[in-house]
Amino acid sequence: MTSDQTPGRPPAPDAPRTLADPGTPFAVVDGARLRRNARRLAGRARRLGVPLRQHVKTAKSVEVARIVDDAGPGPITVSTLAEAEAFADAGYTDVLYAVGIDPHKLPRVVALLRRGVSMTVLLDGVDQAAAVRDASRAAGLPIPALIEVDADGHRGGLPPGAPALVEVGRVLDAADSLAGVLVHAGESYFATTPLEQRAAADRERDAAVTAAGRLREAGLRADVVSVGSTPTAHAATDLTGVTELRAGNYVFFDLVMAGIGVCSLEDLALSVVVTVIGHRRDRGWIMTDGGWMAMSRDRGTASQAVDQGYGLVADLDGNVIPDLVMTAASQEHGTLAARDGTELPDLPLGTRLRILPNHACATAAQHRGYYVVDGGGQAAGAPVITGWWERVSGW
Amino acid sequence: MTSDQTPGRPPAPDAPRTLADPGTPFAVVDGARLRRNARRLAGRARRLGVPLRQHVKTAKSVEVARIVDDAGPGPITVSTLAEAEAFADAGYTDVLYAVGIDPHKLPRVVALLRRGVSMTVLLDGVDQAAAVRDASRAAGLPIPALIEVDADGHRGGLPPGAPALVEVGRVLDAADSLAGVLVHAGESYFATTPLEQRAAADRERDAAVTAAGRLREAGLRADVVSVGSTPTAHAATDLTGVTELRAGNYVFFDLVMAGIGVCSLEDLALSVVVTVIGHRRDRGWIMTDGGWMAMSRDRGTASQAVDQGYGLVADLDGNVIPDLVMTAASQEHGTLAARDGTELPDLPLGTRLRILPNHACATAAQHRGYYVVDGGGQAAGAPVITGWWERVSGW
Repeated sequence: MTSDQTPGRPPAPDAPRTLADPGTPFAVVDGARLRRNARRLAGRARRLGVPLRQHVKTAKSVEVARIVDDAGPGPITVSTLAEAEAFADAGYTDVLYAVGIDPHKLPRVVALLRRGVSMTVLLDGVDQAAAVRDASRAAGLPIPALIEVDADGHRGGLPPGAPALVEVGRVLDAADSLAGVLVHAGESYFATTPLEQRAAADRERDAAVTAAGRLREAGLRADVVSVGSTPTAHAATDLTGVTELRAGNYVFFDLVMAGIGVCSLEDLALSVVVTVIGHRRDRGWIMTDGGWMAMSRDRGTASQAVDQGYGLVADLDGNVIPDLVMTAASQEHGTLAARDGTELPDLPLGTRLRILPNHACATAAQHRGYYVVDGGGQAAGAPVITGWWERVSGW
Repeated sequence: MTSDQTPGRPPAPDAPRTLADPGTPFAVVDGARLRRNARRLAGRARRLGVPLRQHVKTAKSVEVARIVDDAGPGPITVSTLAEAEAFADAGYTDVLYAVGIDPHKLPRVVALLRRGVSMTVLLDGVDQAAAVRDASRAAGLPIPALIEVDADGHRGGLPPGAPALVEVGRVLDAADSLAGVLVHAGESYFATTPLEQRAAADRERDAAVTAAGRLREAGLRADVVSVGSTPTAHAATDLTGVTELRAGNYVFFDLVMAGIGVCSLEDLALSVVVTVIGHRRDRGWIMTDGGWMAMSRDRGTASQAVDQGYGLVADLDGNVIPDLVMTAASQEHGTLAARDGTELPDLPLGTRLRILPNHACATAAQHRGYYVVDGGGQAAGAPVITGWWERVSGW
């Protein structure tokens, strides 16, 4: 084995290899599923008549973003300035940083604007708006800002009827920084039926459109009316008044999204390849070398109808092994067990498996990048690796 | 702001700076606490008459390891071969890889042995032992291996009385690979009193000594009798028959360890600096830019007597703010709230705080390295940064 077989280093171009080759654990993306997920939401957005601004926070990969938006580089949403800078380096020029702005970060925002990136920030307070106004004036160029509006009490944002909304708008407008409004229906992750998800989508749209209307009534601009989350983007049927739709998780999907019916298990594009390193037959356990370092500590399905532990188990081809669950994790150990009353399959030492994660954003973050399987067929009984996609990390 | 202020890049040597300077979130280590934690366990090990083999899996930093073992480079434990390779590069030559060996990883182990590193592996099955024996013979050098023994049903290992123990020993002995036995009392993390922790330490020792004795009775060698976990290492009073003590978490400690009384809050050497980015006064929330990406999803205190949420909140100097807890996390958002019945402190936009984590191993893993504060005093009201320590990542 050569050192280039370590995850985190791209495979040597002359080394034909399969999922049986890299040292485990490592993350793998199914390119065909990724494209299908991307096409599905792109089709929805087209039918709804609203452009899609993909959120790159899940994959944090330029290659993934290029597949999702194959006419691009189009508009993107980011969760860190590190993503904004890396995607700007890759030619993306329309970037929304969708975390409430810390004034200390504004110099990096200005640097991106000076590079010609349309770099929009988010905020929900008069104090933040004043910081953006002052930084805009100091830089001699307006920093575009959206006002965060809250539809469901999930985290930040002003309620659409809050008096402060117009006040924040006026402060931004004084520096020509007011770009519009943004809503993220974060509670939609807990909406377990199509009806509830559609209701969440309607609330998200209503909050955004109401807030934009209030700004306009006050003589202010609200060109951008931005909404979205993976569940609401897949449930919305009417986005009248909305100018853009955001979603991120859907490129990979995960067990949480499958658990609320937004996707099926066959849509999950991200998994982690692990190896069987032992058996505790006295306890009904199969031990692997994939612990929480490889899967993350995310237990998003714990609060769902079916708790999937740290993940469901598939074979190396990606076929789910019925009733086998990753039930526990140490830092570098995974424990697999059969669901109550089912039999443990025979998986000898060295068997490679793919674990489907609770939460793709969290699991992907544990890895420096992804090996890709995408129509390369099989070699020596294992799926052929067709690429390596690096992730952006840090802040 | 220059790009070298991004966490993940070392500070320029000519840039005097404090915890007020780098973009948030970022991890910080308190050097004085680290040294105190290291001295405390080193003193215990000396009094117990057993050499310490520090586990570097928590900090994954050569600089931290050098402080912990200042006479070093001495013996270390690693959780990945990436750590083994990085520490070998830094001059460490006595390395124990304490995760059951995947036969596919043996070529990397052999490469380290050929570099002159005494590289020991761990296993608990006849099939693994046969793989190690065969690889030893193929390489023409014995791969030292410890047999994992289970004291408490935590994860892997053979019960000390298992017939397979001697069988595994014989297979290893055939290639001169048998080095001894190892026990990790993982359940000690759930021992909530000094008495229970001492009982766990006794069980850990007894399991190791019993297993070693069985091997010796069978005419096999068991030179190494290795035990340890942070709770048992701090509770053990008699390690007769043990040849080395392992622990890792204690270099940083965390809220889980404080929750079971192994350390106090004043011992926590790792924290994450975050910035206040907003307020939801209607809900009693302060929003920060430190979410689960910065803290990890670890909620280890959720099962303890006092649930500390995603972490306790301290000011930038590290003084805990009473009754303020990080109660929720999105990817890049943290929510702070007061404990029931207490008042929310006034923390304006831009205020920097330090969050003390549930689980140092998991939180540290979310970062590329640590800024260090260590006796540098204050400048402009914030602790002076005295260094940057990089982490090993990947596998």
